[in-house]
Amino acid sequence: MGRFKCTIQYDGTLFNGYQVQPNKRTVQGEIEKVLRKMHKGQDIRIIGAGRTDAGVHALGQVIHFDSTMEIHETGWKKALNAQLPDDIHVLSVEKVHPDFHARFDVIEKEYHYFILNQETPDLFKRNYMYHFPYSLDMEKMQEACQYLEGTHDFTTFSSSKATVKGDKVRTIYEASCKWEDNQVEFIFRGSGFLYNMVRILVSVLLDIGQGKREPEDIPILLEKRDRRVVGKTIDAHGLYMWKVTYG
Amino acid sequence: MGRFKCTIQYDGTLFNGYQVQPNKRTVQGEIEKVLRKMHKGQDIRIIGAGRTDAGVHALGQVIHFDSTMEIHETGWKKALNAQLPDDIHVLSVEKVHPDFHARFDVIEKEYHYFILNQETPDLFKRNYMYHFPYSLDMEKMQEACQYLEGTHDFTTFSSSKATVKGDKVRTIYEASCKWEDNQVEFIFRGSGFLYNMVRILVSVLLDIGQGKREPEDIPILLEKRDRRVVGKTIDAHGLYMWKVTYG
Repeated sequence: MGRFKCTIQYDGTLFNGYQVQPNKRTVQGEIEKVLRKMHKGQDIRIIGAGRTDAGVHALGQVIHFDSTMEIHETGWKKALNAQLPDDIHVLSVEKVHPDFHARFDVIEKEYHYFILNQETPDLFKRNYMYHFPYSLDMEKMQEACQYLEGTHDFTTFSSSKATVKGDKVRTIYEASCKWEDNQVEFIFRGSGFLYNMVRILVSVLLDIGQGKREPEDIPILLEKRDRRVVGKTIDAHGLYMWKVTYG
Repeated sequence: MGRFKCTIQYDGTLFNGYQVQPNKRTVQGEIEKVLRKMHKGQDIRIIGAGRTDAGVHALGQVIHFDSTMEIHETGWKKALNAQLPDDIHVLSVEKVHPDFHARFDVIEKEYHYFILNQETPDLFKRNYMYHFPYSLDMEKMQEACQYLEGTHDFTTFSSSKATVKGDKVRTIYEASCKWEDNQVEFIFRGSGFLYNMVRILVSVLLDIGQGKREPEDIPILLEKRDRRVVGKTIDAHGLYMWKVTYG
């Protein structure tokens, strides 16, 4: 009994996102269903480090929940994996201090975004990478990434539908991109991210890679604090919640 | 108008196999549905190089069909890809002689089978590789592969439910396996394959890799001509119809 922290992975393809919604298949919903069964009908609420949208994947999402059941860590892991659907996998379960909070205690989050950068689409990657058939200038995108690192007001790069109150200042510790085997991998590591922020950033970086904008536009766009000055939010299916770090 | 040969790829995960079945989603069914729509309700039958079971993928399946429509090759490719679901992709369309037959004219077929050989499963590969957590002796498996090459009666390695009449003698031109990044890839290239043959062969090769059998058992097993002397047919989702060659 006590509070348990779980690191989980999921394939976002067949979920309507992380957060519970009535009559929809969600990650939270599937995990809570298993916990309810294990607790003989008692509702057990899980708290996640962050929500992910429909189609977004996770390699290292973290959740916590409280239980009165006397099960040790490896027992929890086995029991959960045995009952969860095959698109959710529990990597580890750890008993933590009752004060631990999967959302409030986060000190760093990391997201990766994958682009399949070749002319022909790849059927087997259609749910796991964004297919982008045009050539990209990697150096320009890397240069643009440099401008993103540091503490900035990211209003321009956040969904106008964002419900979060408070300021939109966040610190990005690392923004980078690399190219290998026709794949571009974007890496963003920071104190926190606004709603849709990574997907809007990638969209603008691709504009820069194509020469539609210059790397030096980044500070100007940040300064505008206006979502309307940048283009569309890129598709969800190339995005991975990669890692969550606690203090 | 005339006869058209198409090379197609599909992700077998969400299909009940290649062949049309009433009220089931199949590869043949989806393609014929698109062709029927293009031909204003007229049924157009497609012929495939081979059938694949539910869960089996294809990188290079070949089909043919006849049409009275005046569309050139690239027009066919575009029209089909625009209307097909996103788990089928047409790689190429070629106008062929009216005598060409996608099944009867095959001179060589190639199948690959992928194993994820690490302790922990990988969620993102669950539909694309068979997860095998035990260590494998690659040299022994390679040695066993040598015994498979050549012309043999493969009755032992064919489903007892096989409906094909006639002899079970087939020629394997290449049987091999390689290990890279925790993945084992089996390659089989031959004149033809019996029902479930590749999946039964891989199952026996894994027995050999684990030391449950010896490479020298292969000629003995072939000699028995009895499906019951070998173990289960391995899962479909690691199998890929890789390439079909015509004379």
